[in-house]
Amino acid sequence: MNIPQSKNPRVVIIGGGFAGITLAKKLKNKNLQVVLLDKHNYHTFQPLLYQVATGGLEAGSIAYPIRKVIQEFQDFYFRLTSVKEIDTQNRKIISEIGDLHYDYLVIATGSKTNYFGNKEIERNSMSMKTIPQSLNIRSLILENFEQAVLTKDVNDKNSLMNFVLVGGGPTGVELAGALAEMKKAILQKDYPDLDIGKMQINLIQSGDRILNTMSEKASKAAEGFLLGLGVKIWKNVRVTHYDGRTILTNSDITFDTATVIWTAGVQGAVVAGLDAGSLVEKAERIRVNEFSQVAGHSNIFAIGDIALMETGEYPLGHPMMAQPALQQGRLLGENLVRFVKNEPMVPFEYNDKGSMATIGRNKAVVDLPRYHFHGVFAWFVWMFVHLFSLIGFKNKAVVFLNWVYNYIRFDREGRLIIRPYKKRSFTTFTSDEI
Amino acid sequence: MNIPQSKNPRVVIIGGGFAGITLAKKLKNKNLQVVLLDKHNYHTFQPLLYQVATGGLEAGSIAYPIRKVIQEFQDFYFRLTSVKEIDTQNRKIISEIGDLHYDYLVIATGSKTNYFGNKEIERNSMSMKTIPQSLNIRSLILENFEQAVLTKDVNDKNSLMNFVLVGGGPTGVELAGALAEMKKAILQKDYPDLDIGKMQINLIQSGDRILNTMSEKASKAAEGFLLGLGVKIWKNVRVTHYDGRTILTNSDITFDTATVIWTAGVQGAVVAGLDAGSLVEKAERIRVNEFSQVAGHSNIFAIGDIALMETGEYPLGHPMMAQPALQQGRLLGENLVRFVKNEPMVPFEYNDKGSMATIGRNKAVVDLPRYHFHGVFAWFVWMFVHLFSLIGFKNKAVVFLNWVYNYIRFDREGRLIIRPYKKRSFTTFTSDEI
Repeated sequence: MNIPQSKNPRVVIIGGGFAGITLAKKLKNKNLQVVLLDKHNYHTFQPLLYQVATGGLEAGSIAYPIRKVIQEFQDFYFRLTSVKEIDTQNRKIISEIGDLHYDYLVIATGSKTNYFGNKEIERNSMSMKTIPQSLNIRSLILENFEQAVLTKDVNDKNSLMNFVLVGGGPTGVELAGALAEMKKAILQKDYPDLDIGKMQINLIQSGDRILNTMSEKASKAAEGFLLGLGVKIWKNVRVTHYDGRTILTNSDITFDTATVIWTAGVQGAVVAGLDAGSLVEKAERIRVNEFSQVAGHSNIFAIGDIALMETGEYPLGHPMMAQPALQQGRLLGENLVRFVKNEPMVPFEYNDKGSMATIGRNKAVVDLPRYHFHGVFAWFVWMFVHLFSLIGFKNKAVVFLNWVYNYIRFDREGRLIIRPYKKRSFTTFTSDEI
Repeated sequence: MNIPQSKNPRVVIIGGGFAGITLAKKLKNKNLQVVLLDKHNYHTFQPLLYQVATGGLEAGSIAYPIRKVIQEFQDFYFRLTSVKEIDTQNRKIISEIGDLHYDYLVIATGSKTNYFGNKEIERNSMSMKTIPQSLNIRSLILENFEQAVLTKDVNDKNSLMNFVLVGGGPTGVELAGALAEMKKAILQKDYPDLDIGKMQINLIQSGDRILNTMSEKASKAAEGFLLGLGVKIWKNVRVTHYDGRTILTNSDITFDTATVIWTAGVQGAVVAGLDAGSLVEKAERIRVNEFSQVAGHSNIFAIGDIALMETGEYPLGHPMMAQPALQQGRLLGENLVRFVKNEPMVPFEYNDKGSMATIGRNKAVVDLPRYHFHGVFAWFVWMFVHLFSLIGFKNKAVVFLNWVYNYIRFDREGRLIIRPYKKRSFTTFTSDEI
């Protein structure tokens, strides 16, 4: 990996998401050699992936070059690679571009889509955890309409215009809202020769309410907003099969659809090498103590979605979202410096700032720890918080400009198929028609 | 293709570039059925592709959805497809999604990179005529540096940091300038463990001056600007071989490089079916008369780069650039309406508004028909003209904002490898280093 020897002990961080990048910033010029590894050369602002998928924002607006974050940090290195295995015995990681010794290792690999072992669904449906995946969804949505225009088969046409989102968490809800707005504001005008009224957005939730990690008030308000936008919500329905054409469920409800977007679960993006039995548990997360230390390895830490810290208040671990990742990254940045100096570390305590979700134009739900509100004001709060959280002035400005434009013009100009998503052709066309 | 029958005669336009899209706008609600075909669902503003390739702009900023252009046009259809052949006998085109009868056909397929038959160079070098190609170049530039960081082989390192641009026209010159600015402003800071001074930008021109379609003053000024930015210019050198590692030329000059970007020639993007011998000549363009009619087919027209209209002033046809395409599209829009009504058409006369090229920060050359100037003012003129020429308010605003940001901050935040460009690995890494 061509990392020079240093007099400083070496910290290796795997992953440049919210947890990893926050930690990296905290470790600036702290007499540590830091090596940050990521599969991408940019940090992704995941909460806005759904807007990239629906053409509201460009990919570059929610991505930030990692090398720019660490510019001018002393003894600090970024390497673009994927880690294959951790060798705890020899204190090294094994990656695509070589092995690397560590003194301290921080696993901040985040989470990935959980298909609960259903390979058929995994093969045939789309997920939305990365920018390339979001761009694939964008291409597929638009390709479906281009195909629907061409086919004379009514069943094919309806399937191509039927979008099924599995999972009623924030991602599913926000995507459903954005699709409903695309339908009304854009697809109607872009495809005058289609009956856009036939476009369906189905949101399937296995539990008895959507946004079930939020308050009941939030669930109810979000449900009302979605129904108002024409989204069909199916509760207590569990998807069991999807062959690329038809969804089967645990009930007699079925769906004919060309497009399934799966947001029904996440699991830790585990790296091989930790003793699987004892460490990796429940949704493939790594069990850590209150200092984010991995059990049995005082010099290995895990933070963010991948880490499962069981506390009195959170017996199943913290929610897999941005806030715990940011807070754990920040604290570990301080604790690592203490740990290296043999000073006592400070235990992590999660400061729940609440959670929120937007459901399109002027509509959002916000849960603060002791207070819930929704509607236009909630929507402004949502926008402000997300804009403020983006890294970099330029991204903030460009996103703001896009939002203002999209709001005033009821438009999303990112409806571009830059890289076609090659799904097996869903329907065939006669080539003799003139 | 599922185009309804209409009482109006049908015009089929192949290509939504400058010529095709200008023609399409002119044919709005003119008692014609218009079918516009393109391989992409967006119009590309080609003059700024080099900024996408070098991370200064996002792809979405220079692309515009074609369906948005034709929203609310009556009896107007867009189809996303590639045309395989023209069947002039039966007056139909044969495409990937079926056949289509035409009453009037307009070929506006533009141009593609010309490798002058050298398959080896075509296989191993990059071209930059489309957005996906520009994004490939962007990824490759960044991947090269990520690889250069890793390799301990000095020759590999130098090759990865050696960028060879073949062709001294506006594209090669503008790309060379942008790369030189990337080197100074970004790569130096992003890769502190590399000796960026070793990065080379070589511009190879077969003729005896760069920008040889512009004035001698422009050539000289551009050459001075490039030399000032550290670009090496090789004149009267013709590339004969490139195997992915080494460039051979007609002289004894050779280059060891991982990256060749080929801008040395363009040729018409011809569609099969026109009698090759009589119509397609010189650089694969289609010979047309002063009304843009293809010889021997009064109902087939060709406009833009693909069309070769020999006139007294332009015996070799008009230059293959935006202005003739826009002007021919505009005139044909009027002429077609006349032609359908059996009224006499107006012959095309090219209004040469001049040409320009930018060579980085504060540097551009502008040739007006009777006047040449260069420097800071030329650069502002260049920016204003390009900003003004972009379709859509949002694109103008986002590009402007990016330019202001990049100018003030000496930065380009689009240095993102969203889709890796899979070049065969140039060098290998030992995986036992720690």
